[in-house]
Amino acid sequence: MSQRPALGPGAEFDAIRSMVARLGVSATGIGDDAAVITVPRGERIVASVDSHVDGIHFRRAWLTPREIGRRATVAALSDLAAMAALPLGVLTALEVPNEWQDDMTEIAAGIGDAVDESGTRVVGGNTGRGPVLAINTCVIGHAFTPLYRSGVRSGDVVYVTGRLGGPQDAVREWLRGREASPLSRDRFVRPRARVHEARWLAAAGASAAIDLSDGLVADLQHLAVASGIRLRVDLERIPCIDGVSSREAVASGEEYELIVTSSRPFDIETFRDRFGVELTAIGHASSGDADVELLDRGERVAPPPGHDHFSS
Amino acid sequence: MSQRPALGPGAEFDAIRSMVARLGVSATGIGDDAAVITVPRGERIVASVDSHVDGIHFRRAWLTPREIGRRATVAALSDLAAMAALPLGVLTALEVPNEWQDDMTEIAAGIGDAVDESGTRVVGGNTGRGPVLAINTCVIGHAFTPLYRSGVRSGDVVYVTGRLGGPQDAVREWLRGREASPLSRDRFVRPRARVHEARWLAAAGASAAIDLSDGLVADLQHLAVASGIRLRVDLERIPCIDGVSSREAVASGEEYELIVTSSRPFDIETFRDRFGVELTAIGHASSGDADVELLDRGERVAPPPGHDHFSS
Repeated sequence: MSQRPALGPGAEFDAIRSMVARLGVSATGIGDDAAVITVPRGERIVASVDSHVDGIHFRRAWLTPREIGRRATVAALSDLAAMAALPLGVLTALEVPNEWQDDMTEIAAGIGDAVDESGTRVVGGNTGRGPVLAINTCVIGHAFTPLYRSGVRSGDVVYVTGRLGGPQDAVREWLRGREASPLSRDRFVRPRARVHEARWLAAAGASAAIDLSDGLVADLQHLAVASGIRLRVDLERIPCIDGVSSREAVASGEEYELIVTSSRPFDIETFRDRFGVELTAIGHASSGDADVELLDRGERVAPPPGHDHFSS
Repeated sequence: MSQRPALGPGAEFDAIRSMVARLGVSATGIGDDAAVITVPRGERIVASVDSHVDGIHFRRAWLTPREIGRRATVAALSDLAAMAALPLGVLTALEVPNEWQDDMTEIAAGIGDAVDESGTRVVGGNTGRGPVLAINTCVIGHAFTPLYRSGVRSGDVVYVTGRLGGPQDAVREWLRGREASPLSRDRFVRPRARVHEARWLAAAGASAAIDLSDGLVADLQHLAVASGIRLRVDLERIPCIDGVSSREAVASGEEYELIVTSSRPFDIETFRDRFGVELTAIGHASSGDADVELLDRGERVAPPPGHDHFSS
């Protein structure tokens, strides 16, 4: 990290210095104004930026500092997965209030966990003071042929990775002052960026993809609009985690699973064996106005309200 | 911008939607999970991330929303200039409190001003709620041979662009409840990212560079440490803006001017004619412990305290 003395010299920032030291194992080329990354010849750069803010995307009581660092970084890496890009590097800009100083080493460890899992490195960053903890992550990847939201064609089958509903279920329980189930907690606290899965799916002929951050119906809507196509999804085929109904699951956001479409069926068994994750056909695309139809045993039903962090 | 429905539908976010619309003129490839950027063959990617937070890097009373957007983006682009990289694209993640909703169009206009000036585009971004306004900017550029902080060699001359002291002078006046001079205000409110100047200097043989964000002495210290060399600077040669002493000027941060070193003298007149900006030789590098010596008419003097935003 090009750690800015904006933090000033002195003992109060030793925690951040130790964080930078901790990130060293997962960091390369730190210490200049910007990171320098070599791009494989002929590949294109894929880049995204994402913010994770205390009180908006998480609450301190719900996660350890290490989990907070990991989750913020996974959320950003998930945008690369959605494009079937391989990460080249991560840059993290931290806004750090005084009361979080002592946690920065653990937050850095969590950032390190996430980049290690996705086979990448922290290549740059910035630390400064802020009124609330914010972890702003820029991810840079490369892809020969990125997957776009606009690639869905009539007749494509719609797939989703994993089982849905955990994050929303955990947040709902916490907001009611209850314990979340271990399964739901794990899905909120330890999402995975489906980077390797996305490359496999792209190679297997995927036509379009999006990562599941706003809720299944909301993200399907993005796909439908970008592709100018109608998407029809069967509620009873939605893979839900235990204790969550399919209507709840389709509204759950920040899943960081992938929605992928393809004109050819994927080999679901091979996918599951390789990644330990389910891949489920949940619907299909047909010509018509850009829209999402949710079917409950063949009957069209209204979609549940979208995911809006903790506002509901 | 891949505007996340994290903001939710409804009238309250129309301001952000209009902001995205406004950025359209300076934006390309918006609307997917990540931006796709083509890299010229053989060039390397240079990337940096920077945060601009209300109350830390600026105060609302001091700047218009448009100036806030522009300044945050210039600060990030300045990191590319420091590496002599040409911008390929900018990604902006905004944390927006309710009371700033109505200003987002103007903030976007300012972001547009900055990218236009540097000949680049907004290629992606994210908007979400936040407790205070934060503008997090990721800049991606390319360079065949980036300039590093570590390139200073014994005998190199140290140069600085522009005239220093304005930003600190303006902040000091504002903190005292006074008007800043037009010159000082302009230097705080309308810094320039020296992108084109940096490319010229690199082509003219610059050995190292850094952008001036922490104060001249603090940034020289970064150069000295990275290069393992002693830097000696003469106070009386520091180019100061009117009404600011050289001792004040060397502590002024967020100048976004460049410190550049070279073993060959630069053609200062050609530089000034071309860019309308001064280029001044202020000292030189010599072998010895990595350190910065500040000389006042040949006598070594203690450096003033470094820049730490508004804490002083």
